[in-house]
Parts: sequence; C-alpha cells; structure tokens
Amino acid sequence: MKKEIINIGILGLGTVGQGVLKILRENKEFIEQEIFPCKINIKKIADKNKKIALDNKNYYKILTESAEEIVTDPEIDIVVETIGGFEPAKSLIVQALKQGKHVVTANKEVIAGAGYEILDLARENKVYFLFEASVASGIPIIGALSHSLTSYKLTEIIGILNGTTNYILTKMSEEGKDYEEALKEAQEKGYAEADPGKDIDGFDAFNKIFILSAIAFRAKIDLGNIYYEGIRNITKLDIEYARELGYTVKLLALARNTGLDLDIRVHPALIPKKHTLANIGGAHNGILVRGGDFGDLTFSGLGAGALPAGSMIVSDVVEIIKNYDNYYNQYNCFEKKKIRDFSQTNSPYYLRIRVKDRPGVLAEIAGVFAWKKVSFLSVIQKGEAGEVADIVFLTHQAKEGNVREALEEVTRLECVEKICSAIRVVEI
Amino acid sequence: MKKEIINIGILGLGTVGQGVLKILRENKEFIEQEIFPCKINIKKIADKNKKIALDNKNYYKILTESAEEIVTDPEIDIVVETIGGFEPAKSLIVQALKQGKHVVTANKEVIAGAGYEILDLARENKVYFLFEASVASGIPIIGALSHSLTSYKLTEIIGILNGTTNYILTKMSEEGKDYEEALKEAQEKGYAEADPGKDIDGFDAFNKIFILSAIAFRAKIDLGNIYYEGIRNITKLDIEYARELGYTVKLLALARNTGLDLDIRVHPALIPKKHTLANIGGAHNGILVRGGDFGDLTFSGLGAGALPAGSMIVSDVVEIIKNYDNYYNQYNCFEKKKIRDFSQTNSPYYLRIRVKDRPGVLAEIAGVFAWKKVSFLSVIQKGEAGEVADIVFLTHQAKEGNVREALEEVTRLECVEKICSAIRVVEI
Repeated sequence: MKKEIINIGILGLGTVGQGVLKILRENKEFIEQEIFPCKINIKKIADKNKKIALDNKNYYKILTESAEEIVTDPEIDIVVETIGGFEPAKSLIVQALKQGKHVVTANKEVIAGAGYEILDLARENKVYFLFEASVASGIPIIGALSHSLTSYKLTEIIGILNGTTNYILTKMSEEGKDYEEALKEAQEKGYAEADPGKDIDGFDAFNKIFILSAIAFRAKIDLGNIYYEGIRNITKLDIEYARELGYTVKLLALARNTGLDLDIRVHPALIPKKHTLANIGGAHNGILVRGGDFGDLTFSGLGAGALPAGSMIVSDVVEIIKNYDNYYNQYNCFEKKKIRDFSQTNSPYYLRIRVKDRPGVLAEIAGVFAWKKVSFLSVIQKGEAGEVADIVFLTHQAKEGNVREALEEVTRLECVEKICSAIRVVEI
Repeated sequence: MKKEIINIGILGLGTVGQGVLKILRENKEFIEQEIFPCKINIKKIADKNKKIALDNKNYYKILTESAEEIVTDPEIDIVVETIGGFEPAKSLIVQALKQGKHVVTANKEVIAGAGYEILDLARENKVYFLFEASVASGIPIIGALSHSLTSYKLTEIIGILNGTTNYILTKMSEEGKDYEEALKEAQEKGYAEADPGKDIDGFDAFNKIFILSAIAFRAKIDLGNIYYEGIRNITKLDIEYARELGYTVKLLALARNTGLDLDIRVHPALIPKKHTLANIGGAHNGILVRGGDFGDLTFSGLGAGALPAGSMIVSDVVEIIKNYDNYYNQYNCFEKKKIRDFSQTNSPYYLRIRVKDRPGVLAEIAGVFAWKKVSFLSVIQKGEAGEVADIVFLTHQAKEGNVREALEEVTRLECVEKICSAIRVVEI
C-alpha cells in the first residue's frame, strides 16, 4: 500500500532551495493531483543561516541548523540536497542513502566527483538518487536520456551547457561588447558570480558533459581525462572574423562515442551560424543529441535559476512518489569506456597569427604547418598593412597534437609576432 | 521476480512496424543491457500481406495473418500496434488490454478518437498503454510531459507538428516554389502521401495537439471542439510579404491554458522569423512548452519516419520492461476542461485585400473594420498601381468572430475585388 504522507527534508536554503519551496507552495494543488492519493509534507529544513528570509512563517518552526538531523530522521522519506559544492553535500547524501532515504539533488559537483559510488549505494539500498536539475536545469535531458532514448545507441551530444559564458559570448557577438564589459554586465544581472572562474574556465560545463556522457553512453568514464578550456581568451575581433566566415563562437561541450573510445571535451568553438545551436543566445542552454539514423534532436531552455532548477527537483520528487513502492534502477552505466587522449582528437582550427608584414611570411608559416600535417582551407590577411598584419587561417580537420606542435614551432619563427587566437571549429 | 523472457507481438508491418523490427535487431545488445536480466522475444507478427519483404528470414516462421491470434495469445506480454488508422486498430488494442497485455502504439487517430476510454481500460487492468511515437515521433515530448515536467502547471504549447506541411512551407519560403510545386516535390520525396489531405488540411496536427493538450494540461477535453485549418490557401506571395514584415509562415498547433478554459487550434500563422520555431525547417517538427516563470523549453527533431517512430516505440517497450512488476499510472487526465469557442479566441491578423485602385477605398475598408472593433497596426499598398491593387493589413489583436464578420462585410463593398488572404499572426 502506498504511503500517504511523504515526508521531505531540505538541506540548504540558497537560491535553489528557496526555488524548491516556492514551486512546492505555488503548485501544491497541481502536484497533489499528480501524486494522488499521496501528499507531500515538508518536515524539516536545514540551514546554518537562522536569519534566512522565508516567505512562509510556518517554515521557521521546522528550520534546523543541523543537516545531520534530517539525514538521520527515520520519518523523512526523501532528502532534497540543495547545499551545493562537494562537501559536506556528498557525505550527507551518502548518509541519507544509507538510511534508506531517496535523494534528489542538483549538485553536479557531487555527481561528477562521486556519482558512480553514489549510484551504486542507491542501488544497494533500493532507493532513488535523481538529479535532473544538475545539467541544464530547465531542460529535462536526463529524463529524456533515461526514459525515452533507450532503444538507440547515441553517438554524439553537443551542448551549450553554461548560461554565464553563453550570455557573455552573446553580448560580445550581438552588441560588439568586449569580454571584460560583457562579463561585468553578466555579473550585474546575476548571470555570473563575483568569482566567475568555474563558469568562465569551463569547469561547470565539464562537470555537466561528464554527467550527460555517463548517462547517454551508459558509460563508466574517468572524469580526470576530460579536457576543458574556457572563454577568457575569446576576443570581440575573433567573433567578428568568425561571423564573416559564417560562424558563431560558443562554449561547446562535446561528447562523441566512436565505438572504440569516447571523445569528450569542453572548449570554445566556431559553429556554423545557421545551426540551431548557434541561435541559442543569452543565458539559455541548448543540447543536441544525435544517434545514427535517428536524426538530430535538439533541446533549448533555461540553463539555471531558482525556478527551473526548483521545478526539476520537485519533478524528481514527484517521480519518486509515483514509483514509491516500485523501485527500479534508472541508470545503467555498464560500460567502462576510455576517453580519447585530447592530443589525438581532430578538429579544424581557426587561427589568427600576427606577423611582420613582409614577403615570404606566409610561405614560412605554411611550411611549418605542412610539416606537421596541418593543411589550410582558407587564408585571409586582415587589418591594414603596416609593420605588422594579422593573418586568419582556417585549417582542414587536423590532429590536436599536431596543431599544438605546429603552433609552438610557428611562434619561434622570426617573422611571427604572436599567435593571437587558436579556436577549434565544430561543423555540427 | 522479474519475468526473464518478454514476449512481444507486432500488429502490422508497414513502414513503422518494419522500423520497430530494424531497431530491435540492430540495437539488440544495447537494449538487452538496458533491460537486463530480461530479454525480448518477438513471438508473433501479424500482417495480411504474406508477401511482405522481411530482411530476417526467421520472421516468416512467426508471421500470421490473424491479428486476433496475437491479442489473445496468453504468452504475449506486450502488443505493439503499428497498423495505423482507427479500426481495426482500436478494437485490437482494447482486446489486448482486456487480456492484460501492455500495449505500445504510434496511432494518433486511435488515441485522439478513444484515448480516454483506452487509458481507463489500461488503468483498470493495471497494464501500460504508451504512445510516445504518436506525436512528433523523433521528439520525446510525451515522456518529458509525463516524467519531467510534473511539478509545474504548463500554460502553453506551440508546435510545428506536421512534417509534410512544414516541408512544403519551407520549400515555398526558401526556394520561392509555389504550393503545387512544393507539394509535388514532397510527394516525390516521400514526405507527403498520394492523398495528402490529412496532413495538408491540418487533421494530423489536430490529432497531435489534442494528445499533447490532454497530457500536458492533465485535461479531459472534447476533441470535436478543436478548430483546425490547413495550408491549401497559403501562397508564395503571402510568404514573401510576411518575410518583409519580419515573419515566417508555419502551420502551428497551439494550446493555451487560460485557467478558465483551453484555447486549442491548428492553423497557418505568421510567426516572428527570428524565433527558434521559425527556423525549424524541412520535415522537422518543433515544440515549445511554456509555463509561468519556468521559461520556454523548445524541442526540435524528426517528426516522422520508420526509425524515429520505431525507436520511440521500442523505447516505450523498454520502459514497460523496466517497470514490469511495478505498474503505475502514467497519465492523469483529471480535469474536465472546456475548449474556448473559436470565434472567441484572439489573434492579430495578416490580411491581403484586392481593391479597385481609387481614392477613398482605404477609408471605406477601415470603417468596416473599426465598426467590428478591429484596428490596424500597419497598412501597406502592394503591387503596381493600375485598375486594381493589393493592400496588406496587419491588425492588432482582435476577436476571431469580429474579424470574420468584418471580412464578410468587406467583401460586400463595391470597391473590394476579393479577400486574397487572411492569416493569423502568433507573436510567440
């Protein structure tokens, strides 16, 4: 028989935790119809900050400073973890699962850092560990991968998974802002944190593409081998040149299943400006899923925020309640998969190289690239002729390691002032 | 204990049925890992056509002419219905459910025509009735609505749900083809049937938006009250004028939950050409789901075809097997909802009216519209001045009934030759 009152404990009342409370309150009637005849009871909320502003005064009665109290309370059925960061969140999740509680979280760092261990633990204890909100929170991609795309081997995922960097790149691209200006605006509007490193440097997208790859490819992979690179070096000028060449610059998270290994990486990329993903602007996220004859399936939606994340967390809670007495294992990560060494991956490249403007320069540079087996699709001299000039190269598909070696050699040429930019091209 | 061999019976081996077989065969290993420790056994396939071309000779041994044999076979656990059309498919589905078999189908006509009755029957018998492939087959929208968007009241769905008409409109728009030419090309390429009426006249999209509305709004609605209109009257010229005004013409399926009632309809519409949906071209489908503060969530993917449909059907089979001993009711259509009378809905309008080119015409026409409370946003005279001229009007939001009355009055004016076009505008 179905338990009628499902007791929930919430760990952490930051933005997302408050979003969860708001969704639960505002959609109470709808949710209760959805989980009929069950009802949700918020039994305890843990937060260190006792002065927290709660719009419902009743919550103060159930507020505790001790997270421990929630994960050990025998009456609590589902723990919602919205503390964020690796510890203490991870230990609390582990403790809750061991106590036989279901856990819902949006915590990508915990999943990236200890996901397999936690999933094993959940399986052993026959409890759910759900985390739809952890990746592109407004897009139900994990549900799609685990409920609806289960009959076809997926070959590729290409995502714009970080809203902060997408906002910055969109501002640079559409309004001609430079990087610092766009970052400042993102911070003012709340799209970037005061310390934006995790977003800007690709770490956030790196955690997310790891999670998507594991779920989509049913794979056991080693997070440490995934390459990531952020957008600090992207300039307004390169965005303009890219546009002239028919491309838009995006921070892409890529995962390809070659059959032999997985090619997973995060880096800025030039993508064709007519592609759906190129047109996903602002703080939105977009995900393309591809599989053999199946065609392309693209999702776009909000990537972050209290309400999208809160909605997905509560949807996970609803999913658990609907399946309450019917535990089944949602995620199979059965295949141990090697991640391709980054130097062995292939991409065409956009390069901007500043040279002394005199005869023979192009021949010298081209010679070095040819030696390293990198060939050019197009070469355009940019800017006014003068003492120095910028040359923009688009290369054919080339091995990452070879391009790096070539660039190292090229910087040593007397005629070369500097490598201004080197951005990979992804022909989606 | 979980049943180890799950016996499947397939009804009908048309395009989709063959797609199901292909997916099951080509992805056998992947699917078996997914449903471990279960295995799928295709026990019987029913098709009247004994000469059907099956790539696996073993299937001939299990081929039967009698669909009855499958729905009554006590050993068959899951029936896949891929006959299409209302009868005999509906009766076979009912029979299978009554026998305690789970049913998976892509048959939108059966669901549109008898969905509530069938869902009730499935619930009574505690068996699954799943139909992900019935709407926008390559897009897992039903899974998203029933598994992942369950905590938030959705307010709006806007879909491009018919690939045939989208292909035709895209060809007209991008290559300047006229309607007949584009339709012929769609037929040659297999995107349109020899008798394309169901697609062209909006009937297909009408069935699909009914299904999405019922699932998304958890609503009991009366199919018969949904207005639908196709694309036969769309001309190349209007597509050109629309583009000049910043719009693209699409066959839209719309469903809005006003709280009081549902505004559901299918008709061609001008939508802003920069919107994601406007850029979903060819035979692709696109669906936008909107809900309060949650933001917009957009899906795009293949709308039809043996493999997308086959994949989704097999994914439904996998979902049933994963939940085999744990029946739970997936769809709650608990709210009886009224559909707003079409004449009471509101849209801005694009109108092209052919008039005698002489002074005072505009005043006469404007007078009629003003009388019917329809006001103009812009008025542009098109074409060379001569005996007659076309005037293009964009109206403000106006009541459907009022626009119709105004148009009737306007055709009676002596100065008006004819109403060339009247297309609604949807500012997404």
